Amino acid sequence: MIMYPTAEEIIEWFKYLQDHICRGLEQLDEKGVFHEDRWDRSEGGGGRTRIIQGQHIEKGGVNFSAVHGPMPGNIAQALKLPENNFVATGVSIVLHAANPWVPIIHMNVRYFETDKGHWWFGGGIDATPHLIIPDQARDFHRCLKKVCDRFTPESYQAYKQWADDYFFITHRDETRGIGGIFFDRLDDSNGQTKNSCWHFVKDVGMHFLPSYELLYTPNYQKEYSDDDSDWQSIRRSRYVEFNLVYDKGTKFGLQTNGRIESILMSLPPTASWKYNFRAPSESKYTRTQSLLKKNIDWVNYTTK
Amino acid sequence: MIMYPTAEEIIEWFKYLQDHICRGLEQLDEKGVFHEDRWDRSEGGGGRTRIIQGQHIEKGGVNFSAVHGPMPGNIAQALKLPENNFVATGVSIVLHAANPWVPIIHMNVRYFETDKGHWWFGGGIDATPHLIIPDQARDFHRCLKKVCDRFTPESYQAYKQWADDYFFITHRDETRGIGGIFFDRLDDSNGQTKNSCWHFVKDVGMHFLPSYELLYTPNYQKEYSDDDSDWQSIRRSRYVEFNLVYDKGTKFGLQTNGRIESILMSLPPTASWKYNFRAPSESKYTRTQSLLKKNIDWVNYTTK
Repeated sequence: MIMYPTAEEIIEWFKYLQDHICRGLEQLDEKGVFHEDRWDRSEGGGGRTRIIQGQHIEKGGVNFSAVHGPMPGNIAQALKLPENNFVATGVSIVLHAANPWVPIIHMNVRYFETDKGHWWFGGGIDATPHLIIPDQARDFHRCLKKVCDRFTPESYQAYKQWADDYFFITHRDETRGIGGIFFDRLDDSNGQTKNSCWHFVKDVGMHFLPSYELLYTPNYQKEYSDDDSDWQSIRRSRYVEFNLVYDKGTKFGLQTNGRIESILMSLPPTASWKYNFRAPSESKYTRTQSLLKKNIDWVNYTTK
Repeated sequence: MIMYPTAEEIIEWFKYLQDHICRGLEQLDEKGVFHEDRWDRSEGGGGRTRIIQGQHIEKGGVNFSAVHGPMPGNIAQALKLPENNFVATGVSIVLHAANPWVPIIHMNVRYFETDKGHWWFGGGIDATPHLIIPDQARDFHRCLKKVCDRFTPESYQAYKQWADDYFFITHRDETRGIGGIFFDRLDDSNGQTKNSCWHFVKDVGMHFLPSYELLYTPNYQKEYSDDDSDWQSIRRSRYVEFNLVYDKGTKFGLQTNGRIESILMSLPPTASWKYNFRAPSESKYTRTQSLLKKNIDWVNYTTK
């Protein structure tokens, strides 16, 4: 008899993942420690919000939550599901490093089920460099592709495309960053089993630290100028625009009266809006700008 | 025969208003001058975006636009109008002063008509102090009430309420600032004439400078601490949240492919998000926080 993971097991593993990642990030920061706020949801469940304000990781959040109860009508409608009791659990991460050369990173893994038998996983990892270093973007995508390839041969391409489409700032006509992978409503409808999906989601979670290290370690001690910091603030403002205008998780949280400080922990410590800012042409800033587009084949990217 | 203002006259007067206000603000800043970008809309019309980055007014925009052409289907739907040719014109202002004691100010006056005879005015003035000084909030509201009282006896109360309800950050359960007046779809359906409405809208426009001076002049040279600046950045981040999450004008602009830099000129030069920030109790910061609510009778406000 094949055993499938229960919501309880998934919740327990997500807690472990949060612990594991927090420990790893404290090591990377070399000084900062996570501060934890536990919170309860009146209708059922709660979470552990963990925030670091370190020496290299300027502001970071690693959030675990597991909520349950009767499904609110507007959510059932949005998910096109009958109203049921539900369980939703996940780990969400956003890290803003002090050094402009270290990309903003985002990871989410999540699981949802109802007591009428619906269930799915979702998640992804994506990066938003203030300054794109193509070789590192390539290595980051190769790392994610390796994880996907172990799941199915098509998944990297599909989930990379999904990230390109999702993390797009329409009003700026630019991607949020170099993308990564993004998937939602992953279930057993495509020849997968709940076990293989769960295995994949765990793999994604376990590759957060190694994928971040590819972007963090070569850069966190790099020298940078005031111009680089200014540029970082501008890129951060685009991150704010994406999260407040487009991000479904953020909107969902704001509309459903979620814990505001946990939802908005994703916003950068600082941001700036300059009217009609144009970076000097032929600079590293305009090179980055030119790479903020969909459909770049990062895995095979070569600088000519 | 009674003459009603035509779209052309209204457009010309709005241009005059923009000129008038820019001159006045350059005087207040004592150094900064407005930089103008003219832009055209491919479907018809265009605008003059004027930006100041002065010594006291850190970042300010005074925008005029007048667009016309066939009404896009989604807009006709949103406005519950048949598809027609339309004219929309207005002046929009947001000023972020450097000194945290000077409130952020916002003004808008606008006019809309279709070639099937629909027309209305809209507009308002409201203030977002980083630090609320109740006596000045009272004077500001009294100035706006004076303008409204000349129009109709009920308008101040109605438009003050409208501003309270509109400039509300639901997810923070706080108002954006001390409000002011806000009105929309003002037409001749309530015993007014087009002339009396137009007179009122011009009066609102002409009271932008005097109402701002009540908040600017006593404060722009006030001393302030680093803590005050930090607090200003946090309050500015709430302004960003309101404009990107709730403001209808901003959403409308982003969805209809408006000129992004003109739409987002309203965003502050800097902003910061601190996780779970709590101001020290019994401070000027918490006093301000306690006044960020609806239904404060500012006109009769007395500090006990």
